[in-house]
Amino acid sequence: MKWLSLFLLTLLPTLAVAQDDPLPSWNDGPAKQSIIDFVTKVTTEGSEDFVPKYDRIATFDNDGTLWCEAPLPLQVVYVLYELKRRVATEPKLAENEMVKAALDGDFKKLLAGTHYDGLMEILAITHSGLTTDQYDQNVRNWIKIFKDKRFGYNLPGMTYQPMQELLKYLRANGFQTFIVSGGGADFMRVFTHRVYGIPPNQVVGSNALTKFELIDGQPTLTKTMDQFFVDDKAGKPVGIWQFIGRKPIAAFGNSDGDQAMLEYVTIGNKYPSFGLIVHHTDAVRAYAYDKDPPSSGKLITALEAAPKYGWTVVSMKDDWKTIFVGDK
Amino acid sequence: MKWLSLFLLTLLPTLAVAQDDPLPSWNDGPAKQSIIDFVTKVTTEGSEDFVPKYDRIATFDNDGTLWCEAPLPLQVVYVLYELKRRVATEPKLAENEMVKAALDGDFKKLLAGTHYDGLMEILAITHSGLTTDQYDQNVRNWIKIFKDKRFGYNLPGMTYQPMQELLKYLRANGFQTFIVSGGGADFMRVFTHRVYGIPPNQVVGSNALTKFELIDGQPTLTKTMDQFFVDDKAGKPVGIWQFIGRKPIAAFGNSDGDQAMLEYVTIGNKYPSFGLIVHHTDAVRAYAYDKDPPSSGKLITALEAAPKYGWTVVSMKDDWKTIFVGDK
Ligand SMILES: [Ca+2]
Ligand SMILES: [Ca+2]
Repeated sequence: MKWLSLFLLTLLPTLAVAQDDPLPSWNDGPAKQSIIDFVTKVTTEGSEDFVPKYDRIATFDNDGTLWCEAPLPLQVVYVLYELKRRVATEPKLAENEMVKAALDGDFKKLLAGTHYDGLMEILAITHSGLTTDQYDQNVRNWIKIFKDKRFGYNLPGMTYQPMQELLKYLRANGFQTFIVSGGGADFMRVFTHRVYGIPPNQVVGSNALTKFELIDGQPTLTKTMDQFFVDDKAGKPVGIWQFIGRKPIAAFGNSDGDQAMLEYVTIGNKYPSFGLIVHHTDAVRAYAYDKDPPSSGKLITALEAAPKYGWTVVSMKDDWKTIFVGDK
Repeated sequence: MKWLSLFLLTLLPTLAVAQDDPLPSWNDGPAKQSIIDFVTKVTTEGSEDFVPKYDRIATFDNDGTLWCEAPLPLQVVYVLYELKRRVATEPKLAENEMVKAALDGDFKKLLAGTHYDGLMEILAITHSGLTTDQYDQNVRNWIKIFKDKRFGYNLPGMTYQPMQELLKYLRANGFQTFIVSGGGADFMRVFTHRVYGIPPNQVVGSNALTKFELIDGQPTLTKTMDQFFVDDKAGKPVGIWQFIGRKPIAAFGNSDGDQAMLEYVTIGNKYPSFGLIVHHTDAVRAYAYDKDPPSSGKLITALEAAPKYGWTVVSMKDDWKTIFVGDK
């Protein structure tokens, strides 16, 4: 009995640390500390930095911030899968010049011109002209078979464990967490609740209008490309205003596409605010890139601006104990 | 002491009723009963009609459903106030043909043509070309001085007491309440949290994009009329999909402008669903109209469709004990 007590006593410090640490996949250091300091001060009642729960809004970029975007953003992987699946039975589609370019991996052709006509065409082919129910089902079917080529993980496995902990930590402290991403809103909404605990109405993304009709007496929403809106760069604060209608107090991103959002949230905020950039520095456990990314995620000007505005820069290599959620 | 006890005992039944009745401003009858039956069945665990909290989403029209829209919708009252205020110091504005028509009460002119060019022009004048902060301040200034001409109530006083109770009753039963209105999202969001307990990110309304810029180093969102979207008629289910991203299980409206939303919510829903139409039948305590409203709120086809789809029709005269919140 005495031995058991002593044994339990030696365990206590470990248990206390494990219990108290809301971010176990983060290494101790200035990045982790800056997060904890911010959350502590805005949730300490009576402090001059206290922010009422109602106004604790945090916005997260998705690709490269919450999950992997290399070598291709996962929505592009979905588009390629869909095109390949459909050309097998749709010969007219197989002859489309941009579909061919996509299936040949000719991204230069798809991204040519100032309006990315090729990319828009394959987006339109895979993201419009079908009902919201059918689109939802298509994405679900793809999720079921998806495995990352390099890591072998499924879709939830490609999310970052430290960021999952951060989402939960913020929510446990009364924050509402939103996604504000260049990715398609309808695409992300298929899985965000299951994968991140974020419901569809807290997902802001690129979007276009649907068309409502009663077809054979059944209400139907068909996806179109009308009023296509790109929720990236200056579009991010625009999307925040349109969907959330208030200025957040914290924003998390990984590229120059997040700079406007970080500026909007952290400059001239009536509350204390927090900005964070995930810097991809780990070529061994993930990917290393900034100014010359494998595809999306260019990071130059936002990284330069970080010290000026006090944004925390996270080095994936140094600050994260674990990177991917992996196969759980 | 004995007398006091007896006196308290006689009070008990009254107190019990008052405590148990979540809708005290509703008269007993089929309308009230249909609401209570629906809420009871979708919240009874183990019942085949049970709906998980996550999916308990209810959408409410605003003008004529949650507050008064006669003789003019309150946002139009705001527009006229703004035009009048501004022409005093902006001579060029005073000469604008549509501004003149608005200030003369010539709504026929404003609504002429298939695209309501006149109305769009005065909307653009009062709702674009200024920052979101400035717009917010303008609406707040107007709210401070607003008094309804007939009733003398302030803005919160013009909301319907029975609908306020209904919002609270649904939320107490795990529902998330959203506004889905033809009114401007930015207009409503100034007061919906204070007046209805509904935060800005749960307000879907007519909207247009803002423009993001750093002006003198300060992040600024300027209201534009770009990608103007009218959240009415078929636009309501479109707005629901765009902002909420899921099918609600309950919808509340008062006009043909709500019919598409009611159809979308109540036809082919995988869950039990509920539709309700507020019928304006009380000329003494409020206004009586349907096919020929004072301004907005035409109700013909949705009223005809109500029995077919099992939508509850509320008679304001017969079903409501109190109409307005009034001056509290
Ligand atoms: Ca990103
Ligand atoms: Ca209405």
